[in-house]
Amino acid sequence: MIRRSVSIIHVPRRFLGTSFPTQPTSKTKKGALIVGAGEGIGQALCRRFKLEGYVTGAARRSPGGLDFLKENGTLDVAFDGFDARKEDHVKKMFEEFESHCDSNIEVVVFNIGANIKFPILETTKRKFEKCWEMACLSGFLVGREAARSMTKTAKGDPSGTIIFTGATASMRGASGFSAFSVAKGGLRQLSQSMARELGPKGVHVAHVVIDGAVDSPFIRENFKDLLAKAPSHSIVDPDQVADAYVFLHNQTRRGRSCWTHEMDLRPSIEKW
Amino acid sequence: MIRRSVSIIHVPRRFLGTSFPTQPTSKTKKGALIVGAGEGIGQALCRRFKLEGYVTGAARRSPGGLDFLKENGTLDVAFDGFDARKEDHVKKMFEEFESHCDSNIEVVVFNIGANIKFPILETTKRKFEKCWEMACLSGFLVGREAARSMTKTAKGDPSGTIIFTGATASMRGASGFSAFSVAKGGLRQLSQSMARELGPKGVHVAHVVIDGAVDSPFIRENFKDLLAKAPSHSIVDPDQVADAYVFLHNQTRRGRSCWTHEMDLRPSIEKW
Amino acid sequence: MIRRSVSIIHVPRRFLGTSFPTQPTSKTKKGALIVGAGEGIGQALCRRFKLEGYVTGAARRSPGGLDFLKENGTLDVAFDGFDARKEDHVKKMFEEFESHCDSNIEVVVFNIGANIKFPILETTKRKFEKCWEMACLSGFLVGREAARSMTKTAKGDPSGTIIFTGATASMRGASGFSAFSVAKGGLRQLSQSMARELGPKGVHVAHVVIDGAVDSPFIRENFKDLLAKAPSHSIVDPDQVADAYVFLHNQTRRGRSCWTHEMDLRPSIEKW
Amino acid sequence: MIRRSVSIIHVPRRFLGTSFPTQPTSKTKKGALIVGAGEGIGQALCRRFKLEGYVTGAARRSPGGLDFLKENGTLDVAFDGFDARKEDHVKKMFEEFESHCDSNIEVVVFNIGANIKFPILETTKRKFEKCWEMACLSGFLVGREAARSMTKTAKGDPSGTIIFTGATASMRGASGFSAFSVAKGGLRQLSQSMARELGPKGVHVAHVVIDGAVDSPFIRENFKDLLAKAPSHSIVDPDQVADAYVFLHNQTRRGRSCWTHEMDLRPSIEKW
Repeated sequence: MIRRSVSIIHVPRRFLGTSFPTQPTSKTKKGALIVGAGEGIGQALCRRFKLEGYVTGAARRSPGGLDFLKENGTLDVAFDGFDARKEDHVKKMFEEFESHCDSNIEVVVFNIGANIKFPILETTKRKFEKCWEMACLSGFLVGREAARSMTKTAKGDPSGTIIFTGATASMRGASGFSAFSVAKGGLRQLSQSMARELGPKGVHVAHVVIDGAVDSPFIRENFKDLLAKAPSHSIVDPDQVADAYVFLHNQTRRGRSCWTHEMDLRPSIEKW
Repeated sequence: MIRRSVSIIHVPRRFLGTSFPTQPTSKTKKGALIVGAGEGIGQALCRRFKLEGYVTGAARRSPGGLDFLKENGTLDVAFDGFDARKEDHVKKMFEEFESHCDSNIEVVVFNIGANIKFPILETTKRKFEKCWEMACLSGFLVGREAARSMTKTAKGDPSGTIIFTGATASMRGASGFSAFSVAKGGLRQLSQSMARELGPKGVHVAHVVIDGAVDSPFIRENFKDLLAKAPSHSIVDPDQVADAYVFLHNQTRRGRSCWTHEMDLRPSIEKW
Repeated sequence: MIRRSVSIIHVPRRFLGTSFPTQPTSKTKKGALIVGAGEGIGQALCRRFKLEGYVTGAARRSPGGLDFLKENGTLDVAFDGFDARKEDHVKKMFEEFESHCDSNIEVVVFNIGANIKFPILETTKRKFEKCWEMACLSGFLVGREAARSMTKTAKGDPSGTIIFTGATASMRGASGFSAFSVAKGGLRQLSQSMARELGPKGVHVAHVVIDGAVDSPFIRENFKDLLAKAPSHSIVDPDQVADAYVFLHNQTRRGRSCWTHEMDLRPSIEKW
Repeated sequence: MIRRSVSIIHVPRRFLGTSFPTQPTSKTKKGALIVGAGEGIGQALCRRFKLEGYVTGAARRSPGGLDFLKENGTLDVAFDGFDARKEDHVKKMFEEFESHCDSNIEVVVFNIGANIKFPILETTKRKFEKCWEMACLSGFLVGREAARSMTKTAKGDPSGTIIFTGATASMRGASGFSAFSVAKGGLRQLSQSMARELGPKGVHVAHVVIDGAVDSPFIRENFKDLLAKAPSHSIVDPDQVADAYVFLHNQTRRGRSCWTHEMDLRPSIEKW
């Protein structure tokens, strides 16, 4: 059963977000799937898509790591203990999630990061590979299966939105970030290539460069001192990231005339 | 007096656009100003901002060229016969428009293009200069005065959104487009420089790359044959461009935590 | 008469530069023209091209500003008191220089900068225009006339190299550099557009991003304190800039199979 | 024993290349190592560096694939049957090659490509991984060990040049090239990150975007019909690629004042 209770954590005092267009009454269960869902962007996306009547799915590596979303009623289908680098995990997730939403998965977000920093001489082969597997290979597997699901002819015209979460490192290779920028730069290339191939077929692929830390308990804990001195808007509000993702998907819902393939998101005070 | 009648032309059958956040009741008249307003993006922006309760202003070169917007009730303050290359025109426009909206101009859009194509040897100095003056120098004058208006200390914290409309030529110099790509590339650099300077002060500057033809009577007339053969979504819907601009301004209204400085917009079938 | 004496100033202790390919004995006088020639890159280019047997031409704004190059024997044809923003100056320069080198101008370098820095609100229209006229409009006039000279059918297959000197500001609009980055970004777009149009015809157009200060008496004087603390390689050696330009022209001389259209040059310690 | 005989194949009739600066007489054996050496760029590099007195090393996957270079005397140390994805292969290669050249490896070129093209739905996980391992992971292993060799304190100031060969796909993800553009885009990010970290220490890392097919027996065989109709300069001459790489290394040899970190190389008629 799909509960419609709204999350009680992190709800902005004044909800000012981009809202969805009014929808024709419909029995069809449309799905929104977030791969790499945590306390930051992941939960904001679940809440937003749930509010709009979507069947929400989320995948996360840590077992039990999605319980809080199930408990607050914003998540319908949880895939925890999920390893996005494993083809069978990914394929099975899509199969199962399709069964929950009349096989109409409308939105897929790939949101796994793997930020590591090491001098080049201390970057082991293992670290380099693991970082790429998590942040890029997984993106390929998820993106490809999303494309497969969205282009199934049985469902009529292909349609849907695939969004890849990028980072500062997607655009440039900074000193000490060889592994991470290889992975994120690769993911951006994947997004571009898929966008060019799938766009004319009706699937909207977009890449969002998030250039700054995103608010989450983890960030609040680990950068306590830094944040104490900085203005509150120096980290990205995940609800506004959700706004941007909803905006991108609204473009798809409104047709094929006006799509964004890349955008950046950063705090106003961020250096770039 | 500000009429609230909704335009009867070009209203989409199902209005699916990004809507504004619910606004606290307010007597303050907030202004939205579009420089370079025509039958495409300009009128779509006037309608959208009007619907949301903004005082709308628009500037256009051709005398009488804004009458249709005044007549359909979406435009409050018209600046026609306006030459954006003239500093006094620009300064006067801002002064006057400020008087219409309690001096709070919240959004300024610079939307003047000047698309010309010539082989380099046939590009006269006059053409090269005129193109730049219209598409870039004007952008500087409008952008600078917008920044001045938005950072006036009397109005409290600086705030507002300045949006520059870009084109395919903003990103690369294609063969035959020396003048146009110099002007548009220059405008993009202006936008970036202003964004970096003004962002930390609270003014949001963004550049939107529109990579495709935008639907308008002019385009429909001049590319009749081409459009007859192409799918309807092969040209950009101006209402959806308005969605994107509203989305960008909503980021500003929600705070300073999550701003986009560049995004692209194109038909799904566009090659890029 | 063309003297072959080598400049006695700024000669590197060990001359390690890229040398020209051995040339077939030829009576043909080939020209190399540098527009915007000063004590830095300009003089290095004159010396290098002179050494290789080229007829050298240089243009500079300040009257008498090229005397030191004539006196050291590296400059054959001086155009001082030259204003590159004036079409008649530019056209006349090419006519005259053609007469000095059997009308075969092989290399043209546009090297005029106009680095200014102002907050946006203090950037006057006059400054903004002047900066663009000097750093971009001039580049257009020089580039176009260079293209005209190099594509004259009477001379056989079109051939030649046109090089535009770029800067850090060519690639991004930094805070406070609105005017300069508009001009340099525009110049880069011009270079790209010309390269795409003229490349297939046999004229090689390239853009060189010099990301750092170039050694010259002016820089040594004005950044004395800074340079005293910095390692000697923290500013760009103009002789090595000349190497790069010679490298680019060698590509043209060797055929049409392998051309560079953009490259960067910076000190090893420069942040980028 | 190091033979100094010059290759008899592919020697250009008129040798017009960038030559090395005159070298002080030296007993020191400097090494140049090319990983991914075949009939195109690889052999051109061996010949050029051999001519300049370098000890040349080359690695290639196919057993016996380097025999022709040993036979023509341009290759001193061959590593065939070499798998650049294997850390122990890479480490051993550097150890052994160091022993051949007084441990002074001055230049390392990573030249392995893995161009594949598949629609996204037909791109298997295996293909996607293999492509990245060959074209990017290998680049990391080779680049890191090159950096290790060049920064060994026993050898005095760190010094040397590491060059990564890029492709069109390094800059954009084209339709159908998801795997290849992920790998090449990743390699470019690696190069940037290493350049920023190692540059200030004295190691010059550069990325060369080769935007076009490079002349080789393989290309001549497989694109026979296409090439029959195209002008001879429609494919890249590997000797001129060698020029560019020598140019980059000359920058390192001349000091740290003027380095190129990225450049493109393409036929004059290539669309870009």
